[in-house]
Amino acid sequence: MNLQPAPLIILHKPQLGENIGSVARVMLNFGLSQLRLVAPRDGWPNSAAEPLSAGAFDSGLCVEVFATVEAAIGDLKTVIAATARPRGMEKIVQDAVSAAETAALAPADTGIVFGSESSGLPSDVVGLADVIMTYPVNPDFASLNLAQAVGVFCASWGASLGRQGRFEGTNEGVGELAPRIDLIRMFEHFEDELERAGYFYPEDKTKLMKTNIRNGFIRGNWTVQEVRTFRGAIKALALGRGKARIKQ
Amino acid sequence: MNLQPAPLIILHKPQLGENIGSVARVMLNFGLSQLRLVAPRDGWPNSAAEPLSAGAFDSGLCVEVFATVEAAIGDLKTVIAATARPRGMEKIVQDAVSAAETAALAPADTGIVFGSESSGLPSDVVGLADVIMTYPVNPDFASLNLAQAVGVFCASWGASLGRQGRFEGTNEGVGELAPRIDLIRMFEHFEDELERAGYFYPEDKTKLMKTNIRNGFIRGNWTVQEVRTFRGAIKALALGRGKARIKQ
Repeated sequence: MNLQPAPLIILHKPQLGENIGSVARVMLNFGLSQLRLVAPRDGWPNSAAEPLSAGAFDSGLCVEVFATVEAAIGDLKTVIAATARPRGMEKIVQDAVSAAETAALAPADTGIVFGSESSGLPSDVVGLADVIMTYPVNPDFASLNLAQAVGVFCASWGASLGRQGRFEGTNEGVGELAPRIDLIRMFEHFEDELERAGYFYPEDKTKLMKTNIRNGFIRGNWTVQEVRTFRGAIKALALGRGKARIKQ
Repeated sequence: MNLQPAPLIILHKPQLGENIGSVARVMLNFGLSQLRLVAPRDGWPNSAAEPLSAGAFDSGLCVEVFATVEAAIGDLKTVIAATARPRGMEKIVQDAVSAAETAALAPADTGIVFGSESSGLPSDVVGLADVIMTYPVNPDFASLNLAQAVGVFCASWGASLGRQGRFEGTNEGVGELAPRIDLIRMFEHFEDELERAGYFYPEDKTKLMKTNIRNGFIRGNWTVQEVRTFRGAIKALALGRGKARIKQ
């Protein structure tokens, strides 16, 4: 695997191995591979992390352990602190999308620090950051799971890569849009059969009825293949009923 | 708690109660409260969900259970399918941010459908959606945890709340959008008649043919009136051929 430079994720005093495993998985999902743990409660490695990681630790996700947050961020140039509570600090506050843009300025030198499950980040750690990242949560149910909090940033990071054209488009090879003339011929075919079936009545409403029928189709941006399929269906319906009668 | 109108989350055949609990938590974190389960593997309620929910089920998160996806989306007007794989379908493809903006047009009538942990969404379910939502994941480690996948959308929804109000109705004076169940019944009507006409052949292609036919219609955002008109047309075509013969 050959990943683009990406920001580091730093977990400050994480408690549950399960969450560390989930963090590792979602990081690698979105192309982040450097995880730093500051004084993890249960030490490291932690057997509870593996099952939730979906194999991330064997697929390129690297973990380093530090005793202090100062050591963990010492080599970085930009530090972003994720926090839910207002801090009364004079710092730039960004949402996940803006924080990903900040990180994109110097990915390999940027770290995002997340606090522990029980108490988040202490103010002195927030104080070490350049930027506070916060999410617009429901004030009545504000406590995000740690791995979800990391995941929201990672997804914004991945999306910012997509905007830079570093991930491939996802919708290639889809059918070619039908030229308008194919749609018009399809309408004529459909309307001819409806005419023969005695559908258009009364006559002065015919034009309106045709327009009504065409509208929904036009809005659908049909492909060449879909037009072909639908014309086959009209044909079958127009002729098939006769066939069914013959069988009776 | 007094939540803004928000889109529904629909889990198609979810397997692990733990994931349902995590989904409930992250939904409520970002102000979504309506969760629908289609045929959950282990039934519902599921005692494995509670510990991961952080109390969401007692804090306003509502769960409804449905036997089929058709029933679960029947009263909705916009359906967004979350899928990782390209589908070769001619549908709008959006990222989480754009999908949240789509949902903001009519939040309470919009559902986001997520597939099961093991296999994602089957193509026929994707076929029922207006929009495919996909995230720019690492192609070498693409499998997102279900609750993370839901969380990414929910966070985008939360972020979009701050931006809402930008969207004017673009569809004024036009008829009321048909609820999805009307479209599904229209498909069934159309497909029944095609079946009788001997259209679906060979049999192993039937499912693909049906999905192909449905796709273009789904994209058209048909109104109640257009559905009614088209059903009249199918009826005329199926019966009319006989009438034309009688006249001869």
